[in-house]
Amino acid sequence: MSKALQLNEMRLFPTEANARAVCKRLYDHVKDLPIISPHGHTDPSWFANNEAFENATSLLLTPDHYVLRMLYSQGISMQQLGVKGKQGEPYEQDPRKVWRLFAEHYYLFRGTPSQLWLDYVFAKVFDLTIRLDGNSADQYYDHINECLKRDEFRPRALFERFNIEVISTTESPLDDLAHHRRIADSDWSGRVISAFRPDPVVDPDFEGFHANIATLADITGEHCDSFTSYLSALFARRAYFKSLGVTSTDHGHPSAATADLSEQDCETLYQTIIRGKAKPADAELFRAQMLTEMAKMSLEDGLVMQLHPGSFRNHNTSLFSEFGRDKGADIPMQTEYVNALRPLLNKFGNHPQLSIIVFTLDETTYSRELAPLAGHYPALKLGPAWWFHDSPEGMRRFRQQTTETAGFYNTVGFNDDTRAFLSIPARHDLARRMDCNFLSTLVCEHRLDEDEAMDLAHDLAYGLAKKAYKL
Amino acid sequence: MSKALQLNEMRLFPTEANARAVCKRLYDHVKDLPIISPHGHTDPSWFANNEAFENATSLLLTPDHYVLRMLYSQGISMQQLGVKGKQGEPYEQDPRKVWRLFAEHYYLFRGTPSQLWLDYVFAKVFDLTIRLDGNSADQYYDHINECLKRDEFRPRALFERFNIEVISTTESPLDDLAHHRRIADSDWSGRVISAFRPDPVVDPDFEGFHANIATLADITGEHCDSFTSYLSALFARRAYFKSLGVTSTDHGHPSAATADLSEQDCETLYQTIIRGKAKPADAELFRAQMLTEMAKMSLEDGLVMQLHPGSFRNHNTSLFSEFGRDKGADIPMQTEYVNALRPLLNKFGNHPQLSIIVFTLDETTYSRELAPLAGHYPALKLGPAWWFHDSPEGMRRFRQQTTETAGFYNTVGFNDDTRAFLSIPARHDLARRMDCNFLSTLVCEHRLDEDEAMDLAHDLAYGLAKKAYKL
Amino acid sequence: MSKALQLNEMRLFPTEANARAVCKRLYDHVKDLPIISPHGHTDPSWFANNEAFENATSLLLTPDHYVLRMLYSQGISMQQLGVKGKQGEPYEQDPRKVWRLFAEHYYLFRGTPSQLWLDYVFAKVFDLTIRLDGNSADQYYDHINECLKRDEFRPRALFERFNIEVISTTESPLDDLAHHRRIADSDWSGRVISAFRPDPVVDPDFEGFHANIATLADITGEHCDSFTSYLSALFARRAYFKSLGVTSTDHGHPSAATADLSEQDCETLYQTIIRGKAKPADAELFRAQMLTEMAKMSLEDGLVMQLHPGSFRNHNTSLFSEFGRDKGADIPMQTEYVNALRPLLNKFGNHPQLSIIVFTLDETTYSRELAPLAGHYPALKLGPAWWFHDSPEGMRRFRQQTTETAGFYNTVGFNDDTRAFLSIPARHDLARRMDCNFLSTLVCEHRLDEDEAMDLAHDLAYGLAKKAYKL
Repeated sequence: MSKALQLNEMRLFPTEANARAVCKRLYDHVKDLPIISPHGHTDPSWFANNEAFENATSLLLTPDHYVLRMLYSQGISMQQLGVKGKQGEPYEQDPRKVWRLFAEHYYLFRGTPSQLWLDYVFAKVFDLTIRLDGNSADQYYDHINECLKRDEFRPRALFERFNIEVISTTESPLDDLAHHRRIADSDWSGRVISAFRPDPVVDPDFEGFHANIATLADITGEHCDSFTSYLSALFARRAYFKSLGVTSTDHGHPSAATADLSEQDCETLYQTIIRGKAKPADAELFRAQMLTEMAKMSLEDGLVMQLHPGSFRNHNTSLFSEFGRDKGADIPMQTEYVNALRPLLNKFGNHPQLSIIVFTLDETTYSRELAPLAGHYPALKLGPAWWFHDSPEGMRRFRQQTTETAGFYNTVGFNDDTRAFLSIPARHDLARRMDCNFLSTLVCEHRLDEDEAMDLAHDLAYGLAKKAYKL
Repeated sequence: MSKALQLNEMRLFPTEANARAVCKRLYDHVKDLPIISPHGHTDPSWFANNEAFENATSLLLTPDHYVLRMLYSQGISMQQLGVKGKQGEPYEQDPRKVWRLFAEHYYLFRGTPSQLWLDYVFAKVFDLTIRLDGNSADQYYDHINECLKRDEFRPRALFERFNIEVISTTESPLDDLAHHRRIADSDWSGRVISAFRPDPVVDPDFEGFHANIATLADITGEHCDSFTSYLSALFARRAYFKSLGVTSTDHGHPSAATADLSEQDCETLYQTIIRGKAKPADAELFRAQMLTEMAKMSLEDGLVMQLHPGSFRNHNTSLFSEFGRDKGADIPMQTEYVNALRPLLNKFGNHPQLSIIVFTLDETTYSRELAPLAGHYPALKLGPAWWFHDSPEGMRRFRQQTTETAGFYNTVGFNDDTRAFLSIPARHDLARRMDCNFLSTLVCEHRLDEDEAMDLAHDLAYGLAKKAYKL
Repeated sequence: MSKALQLNEMRLFPTEANARAVCKRLYDHVKDLPIISPHGHTDPSWFANNEAFENATSLLLTPDHYVLRMLYSQGISMQQLGVKGKQGEPYEQDPRKVWRLFAEHYYLFRGTPSQLWLDYVFAKVFDLTIRLDGNSADQYYDHINECLKRDEFRPRALFERFNIEVISTTESPLDDLAHHRRIADSDWSGRVISAFRPDPVVDPDFEGFHANIATLADITGEHCDSFTSYLSALFARRAYFKSLGVTSTDHGHPSAATADLSEQDCETLYQTIIRGKAKPADAELFRAQMLTEMAKMSLEDGLVMQLHPGSFRNHNTSLFSEFGRDKGADIPMQTEYVNALRPLLNKFGNHPQLSIIVFTLDETTYSRELAPLAGHYPALKLGPAWWFHDSPEGMRRFRQQTTETAGFYNTVGFNDDTRAFLSIPARHDLARRMDCNFLSTLVCEHRLDEDEAMDLAHDLAYGLAKKAYKL
């Protein structure tokens, strides 16, 4: 028989009794605050259409690249996980069987944030009281599916139950934001906004780049045959996004390189790019210049700028060609910021009105590069521990390695950055607990007074995200 | 008078009482498990010949590069330490005097794993009850030497007393494994196997490389005048090693570079190499290609592959030319894995039957590169904290920085990786304590239930090494 | 009303009661030891002239780049902070108003060492009992200024009150050390020495390099038209510094590169440099060679050599051109040591008489490069956690990542490295507390006995600095 599933009220708090008591007081102060989710990848159609989610497997397993990659790393194939390849090999089409396989291997997630998030979803969203394993697989599957049929498990109901004040999705400039408009036009009061992610039209290495530029021209009426016209098209799309409540842009380049070329050099480079003659160094330079252009536009339209560099996307060639993106094969790379960001920062970094939020997958840059940069430049802020580091130890390292140089007020609160909608409360709860954990340690080591920690706990859970993202 | 030597039963456990109690329960569950030593550098002649060890100095001090380098760093010369140079300068020939010098400077090891290992050896293997220092030096020296004369301190008796289930040594493909055969042919039941370490015949920069290739040709009857013939020779040696129980290969290249050249390019490169015309980049490319060739052979013969990259060997030129290798002058270098391993992983990384265990001396790669890679590729596993990081803090960092992304099950338990035979129980005990320490913290922070931690403690101490190395 | 300012006696000690008790005993053993300040940037004219400090703002805020950068990062301009630019823009000339602005934003320093240091200064030096904030700003300002008028707040009185045994400032070879001579010639017994910092005459990229060489020639009577003559000039200035009690040199290059060129190549390179024809690589090579030359001179004259590499100085171009150096815009860079230091170490690293103390802003090198190098080469020692890492978490990481490989005895105690004179006791107290914290954890985890920790606490607080810097 499966063991009890227990979500201890003191989870992620320090073990030592005094620190635990302080942590509890801090956590009680912030645990019920509304969720600000300023950056993520949920599907806006969920909230626009408000249809019931299909089943446990397609909701909780298939789209979660954290889960897929761990199972895959232990020899379970994509086909067994119900993922259809392009070559038409047989794959498991019964979601219940996929769920069982997942349940039998759930022990692989011991010690990972995936287990913490999923157990929270199981216990708090679905009221499950036994652990997931091979024995309880079917019971889980049936129970979750029954829940999903009920109105209170539809997207909008969950949004309200999760106490989400605002959530941001992420879309391409080519997106018409139809779902967002539908939500805005509906009688539902949930606030779902987008973020402007121009990678498909500013990264020459993006799949379909040239077609994307053509589409951009179509949509905006700009010819995009000159750099000036191209910039106008982008600015127009930013304005469109902004008109639907968008407050931020997001940039997922391989590196953090920025550039500050002359107008003439920009035009020449752009012509090389759109004629398809770009060498890798040209593409890199173009992306670099475009970050500086985006910063310039942000100074005009006020959109907050996010940089998410340093991921080697689709590292596994054969897996990518068979199963596509987001299957858990993106790997962090060493990332340099001090020289890379300098052209942009030297141009715009001294503007307090500009807000550039920078993330990293390379934790070595926390104390060496990012905290010193954010602790100096008015325009720069530090995004929270990201992706592989969105975890208890990752968050602890982030605070331990950035706070002493950048302080708390050059950080921007938490991002869940997820497409796993049901895990959003779990992720924010984890972040709040770890921030309170860190603060309680400072209090007990007399590096901070408890009233200061109370203020900070509130800011880290709610205030900083709201302010930094202008929400 | 020397102070008491105390080995506290709770050493390396968390200080906080609840965590300590959990840790104690976990440790009690695993402390008496047999030792699996899947990778190391003990001398097989010890177990083949079963002769008594000579004296305390030649057993515990001279061969231990951890000890030599610390004493040397504080101004004690190799000659004072009894190491004979090539130029025939006078050196200390009285091992007792060398021992005294060591004893007087034993305080230098405070806070290092060497002190923890040695104190364990002194207390548990030799039943010494006072601390080593200048006062107790002679008493130590006499006592240890008297012990060594007794049968129960001969290699085989210690092997049994240490509860070693299996130990692996490491040999060149040119080695005839005569000692291993003698052990196998004897009536002693101890399991001592080798590992296939082909650096002397796959690294063009290895001392004597060309002579080694000639010897390889002699041994195997292959001419080694073509790449194909050379590969056949290597495969034959692998088969020979495997026939004597070997389950793994090991590769100690300067970098983690791998390559995937065409057959034609391989042949051309090989001809450049064996004609002695290799430039440094050719040598690097050849090593890189050979890792991919070794992986291919592993898919055929099932040998587990170990990568130990990133050491700048013999950094101190004059020390090396006078005193040779392994005197404590190997220094870690920054090591890159994401691009380096990609050719090999793209070719063979999706095979669950293949097992590549990767180590690092560059801890920055734990969370940034290695855990994400091992948390995705079925063929990749993470070796334990290695060499300079085989220590309490090093092990803690390893678990803290890899577990959340790679989990526990993409790791392979502990390696002692040592030539210091007497320290093997000390090293495994230290690893077990630190793993229980880490697990107990997870339990007390409610990130894991205690029954899960019990399972994991057993796996980390015994099961994972046995499975990963097919022992 | 402002809250009470409390300096808890147990601050920075472990939270757990047993560890806290051990820590307290260790700290009580060392807290009253005299301060050895072997490297820093206080102004020798303070001690020579012994004039009263002007006011709270000019003493505590304006010269502190840690404070300036944090306020600047949050959108407060240099002008608002009372810093006069070169273009003559209006700036705040009332120091009281600048102090108020600082006080209102003092919450930004929560969790940073600046708050810990400043609160110590407020509480212990000025006996303030309420916290600094907008409400208490004027009360602070008036109280501090009244104190500064009193004799017991003059530099020499504070020096004695702070129990400083010796302090080192840092000067250029072109400095005549007039203040140091005046101190030596006075009837005051305070020991204030300089350190020889030749960057202005060995770094071709230093502002005014060529004029500096001309001045060097003037001062020494050497023509400096050949490399030999230039070296003689430098050696003469070292001798002059040494005659005034100096025991160390200091080198602040962008990288840790060293070189070992032939005499001919040195001469050729020097001619290129002094003719102003140096390309960046020439300048880098010259700096590299000069470190080796300095080491050679150190072997002769016995001066201890300090390396402080890895800072990207004046990263913010427009801020630098308007407001000059040391405004908080220096950013750490990735720094390599294994290859960089090899030429020097291969030439002189085996000399136990030579002492090279190396620092880093790149914490990734602690366990990977610096501890292994210092744990082998007799000439190499590790300087304490530096600049951005001179903080509780930074010190903890330093000990956790260097001790197991380099031990404690290849480190050199604490440097305050500050121009903020009043914070010196705060900084040493923080370092002593954190070292005792680290040691107490080792004791409670039974990795060290308490008597060993007592010895070590004393060495880390006093003995090692005195010995390493020959003070």
